[in-house]
Amino acid sequence: MNAHPDTPPPGPSRRRFLGGAAATVAGVGVGLGVGGAAGFGLGTARADAATTAAVDQAVAATATSRADAVVDFYGGHQAGVTTAAQERLMFAALDVTTTDVTELQRLLGRWAAMAARMTRGEPVSSSPTKPEQPPFDTGEAMDLGPHSLTITVGFGPSLFDDRFGLADRRPAALAPFGTVPGDAVMRPELSDGDLCIQACADDPQVVFHAIRNLVRAARGTATLRWSQLGFGRASATGAGQSTPRNLFGFKDGTRNIHADDQAALDRWVWVDAQDSAGPATDWMTGGSYLVARKIRMEIESWDTDELSDQEKIFGRVKATGAPLTGGDEFTAVDYEATGSDGQPVIDVAAHIRLAGPENNGGVRLLRRGYNYTDGQDPATGKLAAGLFFIAFQRDPQAQFKVLQTRLGKSDLLNEYIAHIGGGLWACPPGLSAVGDWYGKALFSPATS
Amino acid sequence: MNAHPDTPPPGPSRRRFLGGAAATVAGVGVGLGVGGAAGFGLGTARADAATTAAVDQAVAATATSRADAVVDFYGGHQAGVTTAAQERLMFAALDVTTTDVTELQRLLGRWAAMAARMTRGEPVSSSPTKPEQPPFDTGEAMDLGPHSLTITVGFGPSLFDDRFGLADRRPAALAPFGTVPGDAVMRPELSDGDLCIQACADDPQVVFHAIRNLVRAARGTATLRWSQLGFGRASATGAGQSTPRNLFGFKDGTRNIHADDQAALDRWVWVDAQDSAGPATDWMTGGSYLVARKIRMEIESWDTDELSDQEKIFGRVKATGAPLTGGDEFTAVDYEATGSDGQPVIDVAAHIRLAGPENNGGVRLLRRGYNYTDGQDPATGKLAAGLFFIAFQRDPQAQFKVLQTRLGKSDLLNEYIAHIGGGLWACPPGLSAVGDWYGKALFSPATS
Repeated sequence: MNAHPDTPPPGPSRRRFLGGAAATVAGVGVGLGVGGAAGFGLGTARADAATTAAVDQAVAATATSRADAVVDFYGGHQAGVTTAAQERLMFAALDVTTTDVTELQRLLGRWAAMAARMTRGEPVSSSPTKPEQPPFDTGEAMDLGPHSLTITVGFGPSLFDDRFGLADRRPAALAPFGTVPGDAVMRPELSDGDLCIQACADDPQVVFHAIRNLVRAARGTATLRWSQLGFGRASATGAGQSTPRNLFGFKDGTRNIHADDQAALDRWVWVDAQDSAGPATDWMTGGSYLVARKIRMEIESWDTDELSDQEKIFGRVKATGAPLTGGDEFTAVDYEATGSDGQPVIDVAAHIRLAGPENNGGVRLLRRGYNYTDGQDPATGKLAAGLFFIAFQRDPQAQFKVLQTRLGKSDLLNEYIAHIGGGLWACPPGLSAVGDWYGKALFSPATS
Repeated sequence: MNAHPDTPPPGPSRRRFLGGAAATVAGVGVGLGVGGAAGFGLGTARADAATTAAVDQAVAATATSRADAVVDFYGGHQAGVTTAAQERLMFAALDVTTTDVTELQRLLGRWAAMAARMTRGEPVSSSPTKPEQPPFDTGEAMDLGPHSLTITVGFGPSLFDDRFGLADRRPAALAPFGTVPGDAVMRPELSDGDLCIQACADDPQVVFHAIRNLVRAARGTATLRWSQLGFGRASATGAGQSTPRNLFGFKDGTRNIHADDQAALDRWVWVDAQDSAGPATDWMTGGSYLVARKIRMEIESWDTDELSDQEKIFGRVKATGAPLTGGDEFTAVDYEATGSDGQPVIDVAAHIRLAGPENNGGVRLLRRGYNYTDGQDPATGKLAAGLFFIAFQRDPQAQFKVLQTRLGKSDLLNEYIAHIGGGLWACPPGLSAVGDWYGKALFSPATS
């Protein structure tokens, strides 16, 4: 193992940012590089058509400020949960190969130091590589900037077996789901893992670089089990973000929890002290549970289905996202409305009816999924593509499991989807400062 | 087959653009939507740190103008060759399943009409879908804008067998390469194909949508053979573009042909009337040959190699891209320089020495590759990632084949790479106007 990142220097990072003004909920601040923002003025009315070169320059300057955008790494919660969803994802699940708990803890410390540096756009180590050493940093993100990179780490149920003395520290919320409708075809090689890392940023090479270097730093301690690249954002989590479309061509996430809805975050996303009462599981206070599902879409079948049936399945108008009962995308759904035939306008098994909080005791999730493609499925010749669903929640047993049990049984969409992989992980709270590490409170009895 | 796109309307498209001012070489103009550029002024000195919200707005406005950027579809050459390399790629190879030449021609006509519309950011058909029809357009790019989408179509050597009466119309340049060093491990399921489509844009969902809809329109006539998503640009082709890095962490494409070097384009990229003399092969005048190679990188091995060896292999300094003989990235390489040990500073088998035009009779390529990852290789547990190499050229027999024969034999890099897929395709010239279609001149004897 050659990547030994240093802890970051205590002074200000090499990028200055407008942290205060742009601070968002929960201590996660998003900043724009001042240097990058310079070069074009604000408030002027419109571009002159003759100034193409100047437009190009301004676009380049803005691209730079987007490249330089930094999401604070340290805080009460991990970033990458309520952070406005970035454009790209790489997700990795790892299996721990060592049985030495100290080695595992060292890895989690290395990851913390590396993540702090990379999310500032810095290489994984501040030390220059000597010619006779392998480079500390693999280098492909060297010129790219952080692009709002967030790194979110989680612990799977399997980590709490008898290898590391954690068996009595697994929260009830982290129990394996057992049989949930729709999960029967999940493939072991695309599912679970002792550890997970969600890397999100507005540039795919930045997320690839982050996962590659973290996996590299795990050498001898943990190995990559499976990974997934998400090419397009499939949910809006920021109040100002427009709702993106999934690969069925429908807007996805219209009713998602937004990052500025603090009451909903407290109620449905963050684990509080009461949830995790007791010395054994209080390490999760301020954390959140991540559920992932690799949902393969039967693209070719869907594309032969008629528009009216597609809209019946979702319960929404494809072009606008409005419910079939009228209005615009954000109009409340009228589940009671009936058509001239006396039948419900929103089918009894329509996706929005089954998933709607009104019909599930108010249960909600913070979704943060991405569209994916793996190219052509060699077995079938079809396009292997779909939704890499990610949801954060306070109690997956009472949230995802309840919703999926209902959807998996009856959702009209089930004809066109299959859950082929995924898992459940406990993402501990945020790291407080340099020297803190992932799961410090989880392991503290073992190290004290 | 349900997607029957109309030919585009003859009037101006719904997007206006600054085509004249931004026109680039070879009739391919890039425009920025005026509407998108409005909302921030030009020439003002710097942003006030207190106006974070306004900065956000300006960034959003610029993101819109980038989303609205259109590359002209019609012209003397196909777009996507000298077009400044966009950020994302999806590449598809198809096999023709019909033996009816008229069906094949109809497909190439559908593709032309659909490509013209999609590159303007329009859905594949101007007709609204009736509720009882499957949607003409799959919809996932509905709100995204064209993002400089280009679609480039090519014909593989296999199309010129006895199925379609084209056997005597295959240019000598399109002969299969036979055995080239390094190609021995190319997998049939990742190689070749009667047709290819290169879709490039600054948004991955836009390129996915383009390939998906073109493959859908081929139903009953051709099927997807293999495809590849490129997540990060690996070459600069525009004079103003900075040189990106490959997954070895090195700058790639420092000496690439740039789109403003008309003499080099004429000499090395575009097929001219003399090359394609004779009625049988003059259909390629104004076209270019596309060579693709899926080059798997041995990431894990590379990452254990020491910095000095990595730099010896490339012949360049990793951080700066400068040759080991000094200067900056663009300084000429001194192949004669020797070190204090009397040995050449640039190793006799260094990548830049073997690939350098000075050492290959001046031969050059226009490279337009992308980095890729397919996640974890289930067979080895390693990260399946590398370079999806694409090069355009006037005569692949005298260019790619010559260079690869040399590199495949001796390149120090060969210890860390493997060519696992790819192919050769003839990309015909550009389409002149509405009603023109891919390969019209190729098929004209059969249809006249």
